[in-house]
Amino acid sequence: MLNRDYEGQDLCGVAKSLEIIGERWTLLIVRDAFFGLRRFEEFQASLGVARNVLTDRLNRLVDEGVFARVRYSERPERFEYRLTAKGRELNVALAALREWGDRHVLEQAPNVLRRRSDGKAVIAALVPKGTKVLKAHEVELVGRRRAARP
Amino acid sequence: MLNRDYEGQDLCGVAKSLEIIGERWTLLIVRDAFFGLRRFEEFQASLGVARNVLTDRLNRLVDEGVFARVRYSERPERFEYRLTAKGRELNVALAALREWGDRHVLEQAPNVLRRRSDGKAVIAALVPKGTKVLKAHEVELVGRRRAARP
Repeated sequence: MLNRDYEGQDLCGVAKSLEIIGERWTLLIVRDAFFGLRRFEEFQASLGVARNVLTDRLNRLVDEGVFARVRYSERPERFEYRLTAKGRELNVALAALREWGDRHVLEQAPNVLRRRSDGKAVIAALVPKGTKVLKAHEVELVGRRRAARP
Repeated sequence: MLNRDYEGQDLCGVAKSLEIIGERWTLLIVRDAFFGLRRFEEFQASLGVARNVLTDRLNRLVDEGVFARVRYSERPERFEYRLTAKGRELNVALAALREWGDRHVLEQAPNVLRRRSDGKAVIAALVPKGTKVLKAHEVELVGRRRAARP
């Protein structure tokens, strides 16, 4: 069993982020949430991950405030997982990883991040502080991994 | 032993990136390379990671073209690890993870990314394509995790 924490790396935001979202499958679950997935069965169908692993990862994301667990049915009692404001701010890191993978590993770029208002392509980049940047709610992710709500 | 690949996630740049840099410790090694570390002993001292794990991660990073392995001494024969252009482009993802960790987990932000030319603070952000952005060589990372070359 791997430890989640990186001992001795307490003062680094990178290490702290990885302690929360660095476990296997976790960032792909968050990615799917940006595609609109919310329910256990949706994540399971999209990822094909073992149910006990998915349960563990979702619980941890709720504990860390990345997802909120919201009841959508009383009988039977059922819950769904929604990105919080903190979770939505992971879209910069996800976009950066996507761009790097698209550029250096994939032959194609099937998923696209775009500005909601006009559909203009959006990228993750380094910019001087003060540059006009897009907020989480101003962008949307479109592509093959979007799944329809059942 | 965890698999490195995410079966069924072939068309996603996020999954492809994580197959390369998603293993435990790998992104912290890359982070340290941005702080100027190049040698096995430097990474080992900074991270405190087991030597066999560090060897495995460095070899994989070389295989994937993130690091170049460069001989710096003939007798005894010794090598160091330098970020390639592909590796340096990971700085957007690293900056995004750092900012998220700093904002949501840490109380303080000990490491700072800044523009090399004038020291202006640099952030990772989502911007419309076409926005003037900073290239890898135009930014530098300063902070507590910078180690002196021995």
